Parts: sequence; structure tokens; C-alpha cells
Amino acid sequence: MNILLTGSAGFIGSHLTERFLNEGHVVVGVDNYLSGQPSNTERFQAHPNFHFVEADVSRAPLTGVLPKAVQRLDWVLHFASPASPPHYQRFPLETLRVGAQGTGHALDLATLHGAEFMLASTSEVYGDPLVHPQPESYWGNVNPHGVRSCYDEAKRYAEALTMAYHRTHGIDTRIVRIFNTYGPYMRADDGRVVTQFIGQALAGEPLTLYGDGQQTRSFQFVSDLVEGIVRLMGVQHPLPLNLGNPEEYTILRFAELVREAIDPSLPIHFAAAAEDDPRQRRPVIDQATALLGWVPGVPLEEGLRQTVAYFRGQRHGS
Amino acid sequence: MNILLTGSAGFIGSHLTERFLNEGHVVVGVDNYLSGQPSNTERFQAHPNFHFVEADVSRAPLTGVLPKAVQRLDWVLHFASPASPPHYQRFPLETLRVGAQGTGHALDLATLHGAEFMLASTSEVYGDPLVHPQPESYWGNVNPHGVRSCYDEAKRYAEALTMAYHRTHGIDTRIVRIFNTYGPYMRADDGRVVTQFIGQALAGEPLTLYGDGQQTRSFQFVSDLVEGIVRLMGVQHPLPLNLGNPEEYTILRFAELVREAIDPSLPIHFAAAAEDDPRQRRPVIDQATALLGWVPGVPLEEGLRQTVAYFRGQRHGS
Repeated sequence: MNILLTGSAGFIGSHLTERFLNEGHVVVGVDNYLSGQPSNTERFQAHPNFHFVEADVSRAPLTGVLPKAVQRLDWVLHFASPASPPHYQRFPLETLRVGAQGTGHALDLATLHGAEFMLASTSEVYGDPLVHPQPESYWGNVNPHGVRSCYDEAKRYAEALTMAYHRTHGIDTRIVRIFNTYGPYMRADDGRVVTQFIGQALAGEPLTLYGDGQQTRSFQFVSDLVEGIVRLMGVQHPLPLNLGNPEEYTILRFAELVREAIDPSLPIHFAAAAEDDPRQRRPVIDQATALLGWVPGVPLEEGLRQTVAYFRGQRHGS
Repeated sequence: MNILLTGSAGFIGSHLTERFLNEGHVVVGVDNYLSGQPSNTERFQAHPNFHFVEADVSRAPLTGVLPKAVQRLDWVLHFASPASPPHYQRFPLETLRVGAQGTGHALDLATLHGAEFMLASTSEVYGDPLVHPQPESYWGNVNPHGVRSCYDEAKRYAEALTMAYHRTHGIDTRIVRIFNTYGPYMRADDGRVVTQFIGQALAGEPLTLYGDGQQTRSFQFVSDLVEGIVRLMGVQHPLPLNLGNPEEYTILRFAELVREAIDPSLPIHFAAAAEDDPRQRRPVIDQATALLGWVPGVPLEEGLRQTVAYFRGQRHGS
């Protein structure tokens, strides 16, 4: 298949690129490196089925970006967006635009090619959920004007736009609501709790915990997410689908696990909670299990081991 | 002052135009007549301070549309959008675009001119509210992928975009959350309950009531809304502000009032409820009262009298 993937140089985008290339598909990666990393393009540069276009998907229609070798697309996957709170709060206007104009351009391209389309949505559409755990039928609790709204509302808008294209133009669409995901090739500076704790622990520094540490998160290893996405591409399911690991940890317990994996002697420091930080987030994955026969398979200890090994290698390499 | 108003040919836009012209301001009206009406432009065509530009605010930047006579803007008010459920469900993609691209173009214009900006938001950002009545602090209960999401999510996105411009570019912004408003110059075919009941009653037909009639609405007469908007322009208040009439009526009671005003002998017919139709909606207006000294002054019976008189005149005119 010929697949165009926006955000190919991002954390998840780079894992999808690797998987698609390994399966023999042709991948056209698009990224503007606002939050993606050139090193995630370089990994595949030599692959004969990989094409890369440096472009801002929010700025102009994507119809002109296809390389000569790829005349027809079977799939468009829209994964471009800053996704970690420090990144999207640094680039609120870019984040809002890639949710609206970027999603629109990607949908237009899919419509033009008669291709199927997938939107990378997020558990952030549930905001600070009043229903726990979160099934796809929950409508969420998002502050439309707070400092996180540039991301949360952009993704909610992108879901509405995707459904409107599906209903209006009849194109085959998917919406995957991705819960907290971690693994090798995350940005060390993405400001998420996984990279922050691992970075601090590898540097021999105390782990900083925002809030009381009792807020909970679920952590999905990236290979589980990729497997779910590939399976979702194989079924017709236009409504949003959760992909995440339902095993729930307090942030405090997670800090302890990272510490145990790297250096049990490190102290944990507490700092003030971030604004609009959700108290808890855990997916209901019954639909994904029923539809795709999918359950996450990588335990947190194993995923952490691989992730810590990756970041250790990065530190020694630099 | 020089004021650019998108959606000038819409119901509320035309009342704002009239008010601004009466106060001696210069008004540049912009509309593409997707849901606005040419007759609402013709009303002011002869006024020396009124300029009209037929343009789609979603399609291109607004920097090129200013007439020669208006070099500098003091205000940009973005009121363009289909706003009634039948209209926005007929034009979901246009509705989504005027919320994102349209709001962006209007904000860019205000930024360029150092002008102040107002977004017409809506009580629909509260969705089918779980908190009743609705204060501005309530985050809402909106289905991000339902048939109403093209409007609700577009407006939530527009609020997030407005706040992002305010925070990033420091421009003076306002967000007015407009609750159900009625009055002369509504479109007879807007599919809202006010025009539907009045239209049916004036035609001597039974009034059709969707659902059990126990869902409630509040009805704000348009002159009250306009007064609140003008006062809001005079204060600094970037966060969303409710403007609506907190007096709550069941749809059944409202149907009875319309019937009493026109023909007490007409029957009321019940039909199936519309999808995602909110059960109840009523504004908390404490903030508007404290900030603007504003309370709605026109009782429903009086507003209905003026509205029925207008539609009666329309029927005789056509």
C-alpha cells in the first residue's frame, strides 16, 4: 500500500513508519520538525520505500507534496501535532491550526485519492474526566478556554471535522483516541512524566512530582499502540476508538518504579500541581478488544526496561 | 469608531449593524449569504456610514476586503456562522470552517489593526448540560462526534483560538456566549422553535412539538442581547460571558404562549425528539449583571408581540 503519514518524525509517527516499511508498504512521511525530530527521518532515509517531505501540513493543501514515485495513495494518517503539554503550550496557535487546517488538508488529500483516513486523537478529549474509567461514549470534561484548550479543543474539533467528512463525502475514516504512550524515540525534553523521571534518574537527580502524586495515569508501550493502529486499519469503524493500557498507576508509584529501575536511592521531591492537570485517566478498551481482538501485551516493567535502555544509549551517544 | 462585523446579514448581525449606525459608527459588514439574507444588507445600503463586502470569511485573509474609505479598524466582531440546527447540519463543513479559519482570519485582521475583537460564541458550548443553570465556569457536555458537533465543537475551538490570540498576541478580546435569542429579522425558515411555532400559527396549522415538550429553553429578546454586547465592548473581559434571559419555559408552555398570541384554537402535535437535543438550557447571568449592570428587560409576551407583528408583516408583504 501507499501510505502518507503526517507527523512521521514524531515519536509515534516514527514507530508507524518503521512498522509500515517492515510490512513492505511505501511511506510518504511529512513533518515540519516543530516537535518532530530530524533523527526520526534519518533512520529511514536509506530505505527505498521511504519518501520524506518537509512541509507544514497546516499551511497549504497537501496535493502538491507527493513525490513522483507515488501517484496514488491508499491511506492518509494524520499524526502531526505537538502532543506534550510543554510543547503545545509553547505553540498554542500552531497546535490549534494543525488540528483544524492540518486535519482539513489531510482529509482533502484522502478524499481526492479515494484513500482511507485515520486521525490521531487523544485521551485529552476526555479532559479532566468525571466518568472513570473512560469509554468512548463519554463526552468529556474539557475547559474550552484554559491553557490546555489549544490541544484538547483542537483534537475535539479534528474529530468533529473527520466525522463531517465521513458523513458528507462518504470517505472511510478512523479516529484513534491514544492514551498515554511511551517507549524508545520519545523526545527527552517532551516534558512528560516518563521522560522527565527517566531523565532525572539517569542524571542522578531527585525525581520531581507535581501535585500530591495521587493523580493516576495509564502507560501504554508504543508497540502495543502500533499493533492496535494496524489492526484498526483493517476494519471499518468510523467512530472514535480508545487505544491505551487500562492498568492504572498513581504518579507516585510510577516514580518509584522508575527509581527502582535506575537508582533506588534517589529522593522524590513534590512541587505545585500544573493548571487543569487531570486527576485520573484510564481507558475502557472493551471496544478495541471486541473489534480487533486487541489487548496491550507489554508490562510496564518490561516497557520501562526498553525505554531506559534507549535513553541510556542516547546519553552515551551524545 | 470603525467596526468590521462578519455575519452582518444574519439575524443578530443586522441588529448590531442598526445599533452601531444609530450611534454614529462606521460599519463594514461582511457576509457570504450562506445563511444571512440580502434583505438585511439592503436595509442599510443607503446609509453613508455602511459599507458591505460580499465575501466568505473562511476562504481568505480579510486584509484585502476593506473599502478605501476605511483605513483603520477599532473593532472586529466575528458573528458569521450558520447558527440554527437545520442550517449547520446542512452545511457542516462550512460551519466547521467559519469557526476555525473564519475566526482565525478575523483575529488576524484585529491583530493587524490593533483593534479589539469579539467572538460570538453560544450556549451550545455547554452541550446537553449536566449542571443547571449554566455559569461561565461550567465546562459543558458536548458530543464531539455527533451530528451537532460541527457547530458546538467549532464554537469551542473558536473560544480556544480567541484565548490563544489574546494570550499570544496580547489583543483585547471578548467572548459572548449567546443563549437562545429571538426577534424581528429572524429567518422564517431557520428551523428554530420560535419561527417554527409562529410560522405554523400564522398559517393556521397545528404547532409541532419535538419530544415530550418538557425540555426547557430560555428566550432572550434581541434588543436585550444587543444592549449587553454594546456594554461588553466597553469593558475589559477576555473570558467568556453569558448573555441570555434566565427566565425558563418548557417548550410546551412556549407553544401555548405563541398559540395564545395568534390563535388559541390551534392544536399542538407531538413528534419524535431530535438527536442530541439538550434537555434544558438556562444562563447564569450574575457576571454580566455585576460587570455590565445588565439584566434582560423585555418580557416574553412583549417580545413575542413584536416578533409576531414582524412575521405578520412579512406574510402580507410577500
